[in-house]
Formats: sequence, C-alpha cells, structure tokens
Amino acid sequence: MSALLESYTAGTWFHAEADGEALLDASTGEEVARISSSGLDLTAMVEHARNVGGPAVRDLTFHERAGLLKALAKHLSAHKGEFYALSTRTGATKTDSMIDIDGGLGTVFSYASKGTRELPNDTIVLDGPVEQLGRGGQFMGQHIYTSRPGVAVQINAFNFPVWGMLEKLAPAFLAGLPSIVKPASQTAYVTELVVRRIIESGILPEGSLQLLCGGAGSLLDELGVQDSVAFTGSARTAGILRNHPSVLHGGVTLGVEADSLNCSILGPDVNVHDPEFDFFVKGVVAEMTAKAGQKCTAIRRVIVPEPIADQVIEAISARLAKITIGNPAEEGIRMGPLASLSQRDEVAKAVEALRNSAEIVYEGDTPDLPGAFMAPVLLRARAGATELHDVEPFGPVSTVITYHSIEEAVALAARGKGSLVGSLVTNDPTVAREATLGLAPWHGRILVLNRADAAESTGHGSPLPMLVHGGPGRAGGGEELGGIRGVLHHMQRTAIQASPDMVTAITGRWTTGSLRVLGSTHPFRRSLAEMRIGDSVETDTRTISLEDIDHFAEFTGDTFYAHTDPEAAAASPLFGGIVAHGYLVVSLAAGLFVEPNPGPVLANFGVDNLRFLTPVRAGDTIQVHLTVKQITPRSSADYGEVRWDAVVTNQDDQPVATYDVLTLVAKTWPQNEGSA
Amino acid sequence: MSALLESYTAGTWFHAEADGEALLDASTGEEVARISSSGLDLTAMVEHARNVGGPAVRDLTFHERAGLLKALAKHLSAHKGEFYALSTRTGATKTDSMIDIDGGLGTVFSYASKGTRELPNDTIVLDGPVEQLGRGGQFMGQHIYTSRPGVAVQINAFNFPVWGMLEKLAPAFLAGLPSIVKPASQTAYVTELVVRRIIESGILPEGSLQLLCGGAGSLLDELGVQDSVAFTGSARTAGILRNHPSVLHGGVTLGVEADSLNCSILGPDVNVHDPEFDFFVKGVVAEMTAKAGQKCTAIRRVIVPEPIADQVIEAISARLAKITIGNPAEEGIRMGPLASLSQRDEVAKAVEALRNSAEIVYEGDTPDLPGAFMAPVLLRARAGATELHDVEPFGPVSTVITYHSIEEAVALAARGKGSLVGSLVTNDPTVAREATLGLAPWHGRILVLNRADAAESTGHGSPLPMLVHGGPGRAGGGEELGGIRGVLHHMQRTAIQASPDMVTAITGRWTTGSLRVLGSTHPFRRSLAEMRIGDSVETDTRTISLEDIDHFAEFTGDTFYAHTDPEAAAASPLFGGIVAHGYLVVSLAAGLFVEPNPGPVLANFGVDNLRFLTPVRAGDTIQVHLTVKQITPRSSADYGEVRWDAVVTNQDDQPVATYDVLTLVAKTWPQNEGSA
Repeated sequence: MSALLESYTAGTWFHAEADGEALLDASTGEEVARISSSGLDLTAMVEHARNVGGPAVRDLTFHERAGLLKALAKHLSAHKGEFYALSTRTGATKTDSMIDIDGGLGTVFSYASKGTRELPNDTIVLDGPVEQLGRGGQFMGQHIYTSRPGVAVQINAFNFPVWGMLEKLAPAFLAGLPSIVKPASQTAYVTELVVRRIIESGILPEGSLQLLCGGAGSLLDELGVQDSVAFTGSARTAGILRNHPSVLHGGVTLGVEADSLNCSILGPDVNVHDPEFDFFVKGVVAEMTAKAGQKCTAIRRVIVPEPIADQVIEAISARLAKITIGNPAEEGIRMGPLASLSQRDEVAKAVEALRNSAEIVYEGDTPDLPGAFMAPVLLRARAGATELHDVEPFGPVSTVITYHSIEEAVALAARGKGSLVGSLVTNDPTVAREATLGLAPWHGRILVLNRADAAESTGHGSPLPMLVHGGPGRAGGGEELGGIRGVLHHMQRTAIQASPDMVTAITGRWTTGSLRVLGSTHPFRRSLAEMRIGDSVETDTRTISLEDIDHFAEFTGDTFYAHTDPEAAAASPLFGGIVAHGYLVVSLAAGLFVEPNPGPVLANFGVDNLRFLTPVRAGDTIQVHLTVKQITPRSSADYGEVRWDAVVTNQDDQPVATYDVLTLVAKTWPQNEGSA
Repeated sequence: MSALLESYTAGTWFHAEADGEALLDASTGEEVARISSSGLDLTAMVEHARNVGGPAVRDLTFHERAGLLKALAKHLSAHKGEFYALSTRTGATKTDSMIDIDGGLGTVFSYASKGTRELPNDTIVLDGPVEQLGRGGQFMGQHIYTSRPGVAVQINAFNFPVWGMLEKLAPAFLAGLPSIVKPASQTAYVTELVVRRIIESGILPEGSLQLLCGGAGSLLDELGVQDSVAFTGSARTAGILRNHPSVLHGGVTLGVEADSLNCSILGPDVNVHDPEFDFFVKGVVAEMTAKAGQKCTAIRRVIVPEPIADQVIEAISARLAKITIGNPAEEGIRMGPLASLSQRDEVAKAVEALRNSAEIVYEGDTPDLPGAFMAPVLLRARAGATELHDVEPFGPVSTVITYHSIEEAVALAARGKGSLVGSLVTNDPTVAREATLGLAPWHGRILVLNRADAAESTGHGSPLPMLVHGGPGRAGGGEELGGIRGVLHHMQRTAIQASPDMVTAITGRWTTGSLRVLGSTHPFRRSLAEMRIGDSVETDTRTISLEDIDHFAEFTGDTFYAHTDPEAAAASPLFGGIVAHGYLVVSLAAGLFVEPNPGPVLANFGVDNLRFLTPVRAGDTIQVHLTVKQITPRSSADYGEVRWDAVVTNQDDQPVATYDVLTLVAKTWPQNEGSA
C-alpha cells in the first residue's frame, strides 16, 4: 500500500485514522498515494489559524510579509526538480508542469515585488484621498483597509496542485490572513510535497499555512464573519457552497472561480494568409492540448466568420494531428492523459451531449494504454445549436461556431453566461474596440492578439498575477490575483470620519488640517530614525518680481504670452495680466525649502499631484509649508521614501500651489548621532 | 376606499387588478393608500429595462448622466413641500423627513458632482495604470470597467422611502444601469409620489426608472448574469434572497445592507465634565429617537467604561425624558410613532427578549393615542449578557453595557458580528488609533467624535454619499455609496491584454508604446475639435551647461550640494558628480514645448506623476516628447481638460523625466476655422 498523505494542522503533521482513498498515476494506473482526513480536528485547525497564525502574520508589515514571500519563492525554486518529477504522475507534460510549478513560483515572486513597491511599509492601506465632510475643515473622511482577524480557506481544483495553492496563498498572506489549503484529492500528493518543503523551511510564521488532505467535512461550519472561502472548481459545487448556512446566514465571504465556456473569436478582418490566422489556430490547439484541455481557462468555443470556417477547421485539424499522446514520463510526448478514468468518462459524456447539435470534424487516435488517455475532439456546431453554450467538456474538446457580424460574435460569446477569459484575434483597431467593449461585461480577462503582441503574448489560457483572474456569472463572479486588487479583496474597507488630527493618528499618515510640528531644526536634517509624521518647516519668504518672470522666460525659453505679453495676458480671463510661470513658483519654492549641505535627505526623486491654484503676480510674496506626510522605510536598503506635503502660499495666505514632494531619506545619519 | 398606488412599468402607469392592501397613517390609523401589484407583467418590466432603458442610459457619457442627475435633483427640490407633507403620515417628524428627503436629494447632487469631477467624459473607466506584461513593451495589460447590459433591481426598506430609493438609483444610473425600484409597502405612497414627479419631468430616459408597487412575485426569476439586486432590510430576508436559484446558480449579483447591532463606545479617557461626555449622550439619544429608532444605523449597544456607567445612564435618561412623543403633524413633537402596529409588536417582543439578561433603567411614557406609539426604552445589560448582541429592537431601544479595557470594548463591539457603523467618542489620539483599528474589520463606517469635529459632525446615524455604506457579516456584506466606489460596484472589471496600439484604440486613452502622430502643426495650436489622441510633438533639443546649473542654483536659491558642490556631489553614490536640478529640467522642458502666442491651449493647471529617472549632467542634451493622452471635454464650459504624456530624454534617448502635463484647451479656436 502506498503512503498516506498527511495534513499539517495545529503545528504538527497529522496521520489520518483510516487507510484512505487510493490516488492513481494518470498514465499507468499505479497507486501513487492514499488520502484521508479521518479523525482530523477541524475546530482545532481553525482555532490555530485564528489564534496563532493570524496574529503572527498581522504583526508583520506588508513589506515584511512580502520579504517572506520572496524568501519562500526562492526556497521552493531550489526544490523544483522533485516537484516536476512528482507532477508527471498527474499526467502533466513538462510544459504542463511548468505552467503549474514555475507559474506558481512566479506568482509568489510577483506578489513579493508588488507588496514592496505598491503597498506601504505598514499594516493598513489607505483607499482614496481624504474627503472634507464639513465646511470648516475639522470633519474629514478617509477610507482604510484593515486585515480581517479571520481565516482564509482555500479549496483548490485538481488541475494545478501547485499554482492553485500559491496563487491563493500569496495574496491572502500579504493581506494578513492565515490560510487553510484544501487541495483536490486526485493530485494532492504534489501539493503535500510543496507544503512539506514550506513547513520545513520555517519561513512562514507557524499557523499561517495549514494543509487539509482529504475530505473537508464540516470545515465550513467552523467559519464566521471574518472568514472567507476561495473555491476553484465546478459551477455545481460552487452552488452547493453558496447554499451552506455559514455563507447564507453566517457572513462567510465566498469567492468562486468556476470552469467557464471560454471563447476565442477570429476577427472578420483576418484572412488565411495573415499571420493572425496562424496565431488563432495555434492558440486553439494550445488550449485544447495543454493539460489535455483540463484548464478552467481553456477555449471551449471557437467563434469564426462563416466564410472562413472550413479553412479554420482544416488548419486546426492538421495541427492537432501532429500532437503525440502518451505517458509524459516518456520522451517526445506533447499531451498526457486526463487526471483520472472518471474524468475521462465525464468528458466522453459531454462530447455525446454536444453531438446533439454539432458534428465531430476531427478526432485523434487515442493510444491503447491503461491510463486516462483521450485524443482531441473538434466539433462544428449546426445552426441554432445550444449545447455548446451550456455543456463544458473538461478535456481536449472544442466546438467551432460561425458568425456573420461582430455583433453576432459578441452575442454568441455572451451565451456562455459569463467567462473567465475570451480572446480576440484581429489586426483591426476598430474591430478590436467594438468587440472588446461588447465582450468586456461578460469576461474577467480579454486577450487581443495580433502581429504586434503575439511574440510576447503569454497566451489565452494563462492568468497572470498582475491581472484579475475570475469572471462574472457562470465563471463564479469572483476575482483573484490582479496584483494588489487580490490583496484588498481579503481586507475590510471602512470609512473613518474624524477630525484631521485623529485621522492622522489613526492612519499614521499626515492629513491636511492636522497639527504641523515646527521644530528647532529643519526636518531635512533628520534621518528616518529622528523624523516623525507632522514634522514641518515654514520657510522664509520670497517676493517674485517682474524681472524674475522676465528672466525665467528668457532663461528657460518658456515665453508663453501669460508671462511675457502684458496686453495678451490682460485680455485672457484666466490670467488678467502677467503671471509667474508655475515652474518658476515651484523652482523658487525648492530654493526656499532646500538644505544645501549633505544630509539625511538624499534626493528628490519626484513630485505628485501638483496643482496651480491661484495665479502668482509680480510683487507677490511666496512661502512654503513643508510637512512630513508619509514615511516608508525600505526593508532592503539603508534609506526609505518620505512623502512631504508642500503648500506654497502667497502674502494673503492663499494657497497658490499644492503638491507632494518625494524624497529618499537615510535611516540614520552618523553626524546626527548623540544629538537629539 | 383610498387610492390604489400604481406601478410605473414598460412606459405606462399600471393599475393593479386587485383592491390591494391598506396602508395606514402611523399616527392616526387612517387609511392613506392601498397597494397591489396583482396582474403586473414582470417579464415585460425587466425586458423594458434591458431593451429600452439600459441602451438609452449607456448611450450617454458619465458626464451626461451626471448632468441629468443634477437636473433631476433640482426638479425634485421644487416639489419638496408635497413630499414633506405626505412623509408626515409615515410617522416622520420634520427632522426625520429632512433626513429622508433632503438627504436623498443631497445624495443625487453629490453623485452629479462626483460623476463630473471624478469620472471621464466617456462610457468606460480605466482602473489602475497600464502594466507592461512583456519585456519588449508590445504586450500590455490594462484593467477597464464597463457597464453591465443588465438591470438593477432595488428592494428598499420602509424607513426611508425617498433616500432609500435615490441613494441606490443615483450610482446605478451613473453606472449605466436601468433601475427597477421596489419600495417597502408600508411607506410606498411617498416613493410613488416622488417617482411620479420624476417621470413627469421627462428628465431620465424612458425605461431607466420603473416602479414596482406591491409584491415582487417572481421578479428574481427574470434575472440573469448581468443583473443585480440591491436589498435593504432584515438579515432574515437577506438570507432568503441569497437562497434564490437566480443568486445561487444564475449569476445574479446580490448586495445586502441589513440592520445591524451598531454600537457607540465612550472612550476611557472621557470624564463627566468633558465636552465628549455630552457628545456621547446626545449621540445616543439622537439615534434612539430619530425616526423613532427605526434606522439601520441606529445605536443599539451603548458601550461605556464601567466606572462611569451610572452617570451615562442618568444623563441619557434625563435627556430622553425631554422628548415629546406624538403625531408629528402637530407642533413641538420630537418623536413620532413607529411605522405600524405590527412594527411596534416586533419591538416589544425584542425588548422582552433583552430583559432575559438586561434590566430596564429608563422607560418613557407612551402617549395614549391610536397610532403605533412607543416611548424610548434604555436597558442595562447584566454581566455576561448575550441577547443584546443578537436581538435587534428596530425602535427607540438601546442597551448599556460596560467594559474595563479598550481590548474588551472592541471585543464587545465585535460580538455584533459585523455592523454598518460604530462610533467612538474620545479625545485621546492613542485611544482613537487602537480602538479604531480594532473596530475597523467589523464595521463599514466608524465615526470618531471629539471637541474638534463635533460641531461639523453629521452624526453616527447618517450615511454620506462620499463614504461607503454597508458592513461585513450581519450588516450584509454589501457596499453602497462611497462616491465612485458605489458606481464601480455596478460595473464589470476586465483585464485587457493587447499591444499598446490596441490598448489605445480600445480605451480611447493614449498608452505608452503606441503610435505618436507627428503632424505639421504643433498640437498646442489645435482646439479640442481638431485634437486627436496620440497627437504628438518632438521638440527641439537643448544642451544644459554647467553655467545653466550654476545660474539656476543662484537664481532660485536651490543650492543643494548635488548642484553646486563638485566634491560632495562626486562623493554621493546617487549623483557621482554635479547634476542638474529636476526643476531645471522640467522648466527647460516647458521652454522647449510651449507655444508662445495665444492659442487654444489656455493654461497648464498642474502636473501629475513626475519622476526623475536619470541624472542630467552638464553637457547633456534634452528633448521632450509630448503626446495627447486623454481628452475630457467639460459639458458646462467651452473648454476641456487635456492630459499630455511628457517624456524628457537625453542624447542617448534615455528617459530622464516622465510626467503628465494637465492643460485646459478650448473646444474651438476661431482663428483655426476654415483651416485643416
């Protein structure tokens, strides 16, 4: 008897009390492992996540969590060899395993990078600008995202045992949530091996990752308001989960990413000799045969202009005929078996259903081997066919359907009732716009392929970590990935109403209207160790003369009439006379706030949201109010980013320009040490 | 017999086939109206929204939709008198009616304003920056939001017949969706009157607003993937809706805003003589008595430090004793009746349940009148009480519970399992931060009240259009309002993958890497009528000398060592020698791209996302590439906003600075007319 897969729960590896179900090699039918969760204490598992894992993750800042993800991805990269070897037994070819294993690691690397670059080095995220709620400026609104003190349960599909886990784990971890991973039994042995390597590494805080091998039993009963379930699988199972009392009445958030009847559309502009024709055919064949068509993003519906349908079918068939099918452990195999014999039976049934209104136009030879092998099948729908919009063969099967106008192509795509992804192959920008905007409400992702992007394209079937993955309707209505979007889905958005000082205290970011702390030293002389939110300087003043404006115009070449031609400037209702250049104002402002000598403020690397609010005229006197707004230490450098609130005012205390100045500031500054 | 309320469906007012249910004046018990939807063709109603209303709204840009909302709010403002008069019959005092009627109109005005200022004058919204997906820059990702070609069904609660409709209608309309409004029967006569005035005005496109008075029957059966239901009401009814096949399996999006057990917490820092003590007491009394406590945001749980509990109860009781209860049609009445006798029975039952673990510490005198009157009831929970965290008395009832630490106060609040709003009264920033961040995951909105914001505060119970309204768990898990956030919830987010040129064609916004059109005239000489996305200029070049840098330092006063001290600049690893000021580079860049004479480009009002990428040294030669990125004509002015992509390069074609230049450009420019 093969080894029983273990679950990792409450800090230990758990061995089930039963012999469990046998998991078979997809190609040979040999037993690979056994699986059971019998006797597992699910309550303890959830409590461990809530009381140990969650607090440990939430103690870290986003940057610290991102750093652990990067370390994790590096650690797992060193073990790829054994993951690939084991993955073969699921029926995966080397390319299939690459999608799963390297795709999964790439997703973790991507979240590590985005977490560092796009999130603050903090534990909350601000959403949108502060909103002034009262006329006096003492009542403000600010939306924030905070981490839910709950558990992220992740129920994965059998087709991607590595990517499926990591693409859910990475954003949840970054959001501050502990995960309980429940892989699909059929390929759980690959997930279990990866989790073993993660746990051994000790990189993730204890309790932030647990593994449930085998049936989930009453796991959902344990969940509450702050918990979430992310499910990938069939629409049928999704319906059952939606009907669970914890979801209906208990406040559990359910995210669903379900198989959908994705389409690929060939543009009406494309003819047989265009490169786009080949991209289209290659795309369809790749999606039919990668993972033997067992991808939730695979192309099930091939939507082509009626006049070119025969040529498309011919070209796809010719390409399919070259696909070698067999045990992926052997050389030269392009397509492996389905995951199991029962999966193959399901697909065969689906093909039978499709044949009610479609005819098979190509069918490959299925090798005479004991595994779950099935050759690709291409069908062509008869006029008015409906099955192809409802029946999903989760295998190497696609159906061709024809259209006569872009409107009809979009309407056909919409009959899938919501898909994860659609692709459109066209080299005509007008077609691209019309079709894409028509398809968009029905899709989570749309790939537009032409000669410009084909070489770099990652293809129809590949979700990318920076783009949302999910889709409306039949596709489940969920959204995963999408960079930081996928992180925020795990967090709670809350509107805070408070005075400016309180908003600053709560968010840790300086808010307009709150206290400015004017110290004895210029804040540019303070290192991050010495700098505090609200530290501020009010500069000296400078009066801008007409000569300054004239001179600046001549020096820079910016001789716009508002700065140089009194008559034309006076005639303009916007200016009503000569005004100083906006760039002159900010240049002189810098002259007022800068500290000349080397110091902890290393460089000004940018400016955000510069707005010129009031014209500055000759004789006006400006002053700058510069305040530390946000401090973001970099984990991997001896400096950090400091965002300064800059307000330039005139002699009447009117703001004439507002902006954020972005600087790099040293964490410590040796010359300052010993001083206060 | 009173008049039967009509439904507005498929372009006509529909009179039901039955006599219907009688709706009674809450104070007098007199019949106000009757209601029935018997015989209404719901299929035709949904089809009308889908085929007539939806396309008509989606034909308009966001700015055009916002303009109609503004016109609508103005039109309804002129009819406020009759709305107020009728509102009294629901039991509403003048203040209650103000919350409902003026609150509703204010929400529409706010969306009109936000739609114009924060959305493009277009029909799609871009989400986030473009993401480069391939190394060569020919494969890009851009998220967009598009309008769903569906129907927004809005099921409202009885307590706010005007605000409840308008706060859902405004964001849905702005998002491009037709609405079917189903008011709660008890107060539907007020909604019906407002809808009559809307329909009479002809302001909204036909089919974009329909009204369903009476039972909703099989309405949900008519809905599909692109449709949504926004429900406000009890958690029990929400559970029933979640269980509907259209939601479980049909892809209908359901948003829920349910009554919740909102709390108000008095900070441990507050003592009886602090102004915060009064704010707290006034807040609790206001929320108990406004709308006779029939607000989903009302304070049900009064969480106070144990040592001060007696004083709090005393102060609340004293204030409650001054509340005059009666028919709001009469002078001097501060609190009206509940909406109906059955509502009163429900509340009485809830009070009985609370008494299992709480004692009544104040109970007012209920006037001996035929209407659904009920005096305020204040309870105090005994130690370990649980009912107050589960039972919601939808009336003038609150329960006081005590705590000993901030952690305990947060834990008590969390026992409500998710609330719409919590308030915290404290003048201590440390308390504010700790408590708010603890409360945030359990709340959609948190009000922090102190002496600074109390005068401007809109209070615990008032959702504001610019802040999200909704909450996790028991509060339903939905999100309404929140400014544009509430609009985007009605739209589908889709990731587009395409070449830069295709991204530009699809989004109508110029994308880095796509074609720059170099015309014979400078694009600054083109009015909006003549300008196209992608219009571009490559300027002359300018070599920056050491004298330029020296001179700029002296002229502006920006004598930072990197620009002035060769030795110190050479010692810095960031600079490695003298570099030009960033402000010098952008000033000279403006000198290169500006057109001196009066022309259609009226002014430069700002700069966004300025980043200095590569140091510019003496002897370097710069050039600017300026390209029309986005055009936003203003509906109410003879000019619009043009966003220009600016890239400053050096002699090696490296970008040294990138930014967006924001300008105002005239729609037409008379001098150009007749020329091409």
